[in-house]
Amino acid sequence: MKLVCVDCSAELSWRESHTACSCGGRLEVIQDLKMLDGERLKTVFQERLAERMSVYASGVWRYKELILPGVPEEHIVTKYEGNTGLYTSEPIRSQLGIRALYFKAQSENPSGSFKDNGMTAAVSHGRFLGYKHFACTSTGNTSSSLAMYAAWGGCSSQVFVPSRSVSVNKVLQTLAYGAKVIRFDGTYDDGIRFLEQHGEELGLYVCNSVNPFRIEGQKSIIYEIAQYLNWELPDWIVIPGGALSNVSALGKGLEDLKNLGMITKLPRIALIQAEGASPFHRMMADGQDELIPQPNPATKASALNIGNPPSWKIARRVLRQCQGITCSVNDEEIMVSKKMIDQSGIGCEPASAATLAGLRKLMDDRIIDKDERALCILTGNLLKDTDILAETTDDMVYSDLTIESLRDL
Amino acid sequence: MKLVCVDCSAELSWRESHTACSCGGRLEVIQDLKMLDGERLKTVFQERLAERMSVYASGVWRYKELILPGVPEEHIVTKYEGNTGLYTSEPIRSQLGIRALYFKAQSENPSGSFKDNGMTAAVSHGRFLGYKHFACTSTGNTSSSLAMYAAWGGCSSQVFVPSRSVSVNKVLQTLAYGAKVIRFDGTYDDGIRFLEQHGEELGLYVCNSVNPFRIEGQKSIIYEIAQYLNWELPDWIVIPGGALSNVSALGKGLEDLKNLGMITKLPRIALIQAEGASPFHRMMADGQDELIPQPNPATKASALNIGNPPSWKIARRVLRQCQGITCSVNDEEIMVSKKMIDQSGIGCEPASAATLAGLRKLMDDRIIDKDERALCILTGNLLKDTDILAETTDDMVYSDLTIESLRDL
Repeated sequence: MKLVCVDCSAELSWRESHTACSCGGRLEVIQDLKMLDGERLKTVFQERLAERMSVYASGVWRYKELILPGVPEEHIVTKYEGNTGLYTSEPIRSQLGIRALYFKAQSENPSGSFKDNGMTAAVSHGRFLGYKHFACTSTGNTSSSLAMYAAWGGCSSQVFVPSRSVSVNKVLQTLAYGAKVIRFDGTYDDGIRFLEQHGEELGLYVCNSVNPFRIEGQKSIIYEIAQYLNWELPDWIVIPGGALSNVSALGKGLEDLKNLGMITKLPRIALIQAEGASPFHRMMADGQDELIPQPNPATKASALNIGNPPSWKIARRVLRQCQGITCSVNDEEIMVSKKMIDQSGIGCEPASAATLAGLRKLMDDRIIDKDERALCILTGNLLKDTDILAETTDDMVYSDLTIESLRDL
Repeated sequence: MKLVCVDCSAELSWRESHTACSCGGRLEVIQDLKMLDGERLKTVFQERLAERMSVYASGVWRYKELILPGVPEEHIVTKYEGNTGLYTSEPIRSQLGIRALYFKAQSENPSGSFKDNGMTAAVSHGRFLGYKHFACTSTGNTSSSLAMYAAWGGCSSQVFVPSRSVSVNKVLQTLAYGAKVIRFDGTYDDGIRFLEQHGEELGLYVCNSVNPFRIEGQKSIIYEIAQYLNWELPDWIVIPGGALSNVSALGKGLEDLKNLGMITKLPRIALIQAEGASPFHRMMADGQDELIPQPNPATKASALNIGNPPSWKIARRVLRQCQGITCSVNDEEIMVSKKMIDQSGIGCEPASAATLAGLRKLMDDRIIDKDERALCILTGNLLKDTDILAETTDDMVYSDLTIESLRDL
């Protein structure tokens, strides 16, 4: 296993902490899978489904051979993340008229978002290297996930947020887990750059979205889906696109499974962005070569409100590899789909509902066919965004507790 | 299997919906366990740990033989509830100086609380009887759990709440799942009585805390703890006490396991109430024969803010059977313990933290010994009560992003 720069192909050791290559390029973990036997792994992974209260009971570390094989068990910081529901909803499926429809509820993770899959890997890697202090730049699901795992690993965490844009509500969960939340004057990019430049000097292990070990952990989402579906994936995997780490991780996981012969056919990826924060979709749709950042991204799906996604190069490569497509949906379409998912009994935060909104649009546009099977990855919990709930749920009604008045309701 | 009245011992069929006996007494499900072989069940339950995407993948229905054996699989409404983390926290254990300490995080259930264990059983029972409409009187974890399962089962739900005391925030999750929330002028008791009297006429299956099938589902919490610990329970199980359904369910589950020979020794139960809502503890501590309701219960642990717990007779019987004890803790003690649990990386809502606060008090009082092992059941998710988080978390700090300023933090 080694780290390789996406831009200049320089190689670095995985036994060190690196946030970027010296050339500024993103780093990827490259593992030699040749030694591994896919059929044998399937058996091992199957046996581990019955594990409880061990590292292998985790829906990430169940696949340890493909995640971070070199990290000893005693360094692993796990809350049995993953193991989330893979649901079908007949009402939604029939409303869309699609052959099969699944929802993978990463929203059921211990901190309430899909970030846990990646964060358990990054924090475990940092612990293995001897770090005691962890940091990231984020106000959302990333920061609460980091705060939880740092605390659970007996370490401290520092979360950097721009003074201007942060609302206390978004960081309450992070503060509760004991993170120090540090406001600064500047943009997210300033915060990211500061941590990349000075994290090491401050003794901080940096868990921003560019941390390559987060991607390794996040790959497990597709492993788990494949395993639950008996190693036969649907035709389409639909994911929301903000920082784009999700598509990188998904693509990498699919590549692993294909290379190991554990799946025979690659699904296509549909990446859905919110219209108000869709620089990647615009680049792909317009056939441009470079991503033009969106300086003032604006969508109610707060987890997607990212104007300058750092991982766009890897994301583009992944989409090309799997004949993937992109699409954007507006906030109204997102909220209609959120209502469908909530009222199906699954529930999710707005960003997650972009998947269903995108799927509907792609079906309308005849890009996804009725006869195909699709799976939407739900990234965050219904309880994560109560402001949106307050705005959008129906009102309470009044009754004088008579049979007659209730019959009319 | 049959329903038996706690007061007059009348017997009723479990294949009907009953909220109470005609004498007004609470009903209990009584099952003849003689036909079952405990050792054989252990093997079956162990095999089912590897299940995914089937009814038996649920941490409730894994134990179907002991829950509702007569309900066919196709009527079961499950979100794979249970399967929650059973954690140890070395920092908290060593701070208390106790031999062993576990936390069972029912807070990780799909709707975020332990109510899911019981609600999946009640809604499945109602579905089996052919009901399409479900109802309860609650503003808290019960109502969101009911709304989720009713939606997931393709049914509707109605939630009755007193106009005076309900805050929109507490019912947002319930509204999101599509429940109709009905305000009325009156008390909780009025709402409960109305549903008991008129639910049937309105075609509603009533899921209030007195629903005996909720207790059957909730029993699974203790089964799962026992199974995870290889059928050897700690010396003490510590639970928060509000409506007291938890102690009824726990006691019933323990009795089942003991009768089947699946455990050899009964743990003792420590039931912890919040000082501002502790009518049951006062009755037990004062050796009174009747519960005197507390007309204006007041605790920040909102899930415990119940002045007239309906299940006190069963709770008293259970505590007598297992040499149980009660205790009350004030809001400050609860919030200190909540901070410990949150900052350990587990996290919970205030009511859950009453367990740790009670454990500490009982150790101070030499009722629980350092050399014993204790397990606290955490009932609700950290994200359930963000108002309390806003009140109690530390503030953010400011930095000008210089190395010097950060070194001082």
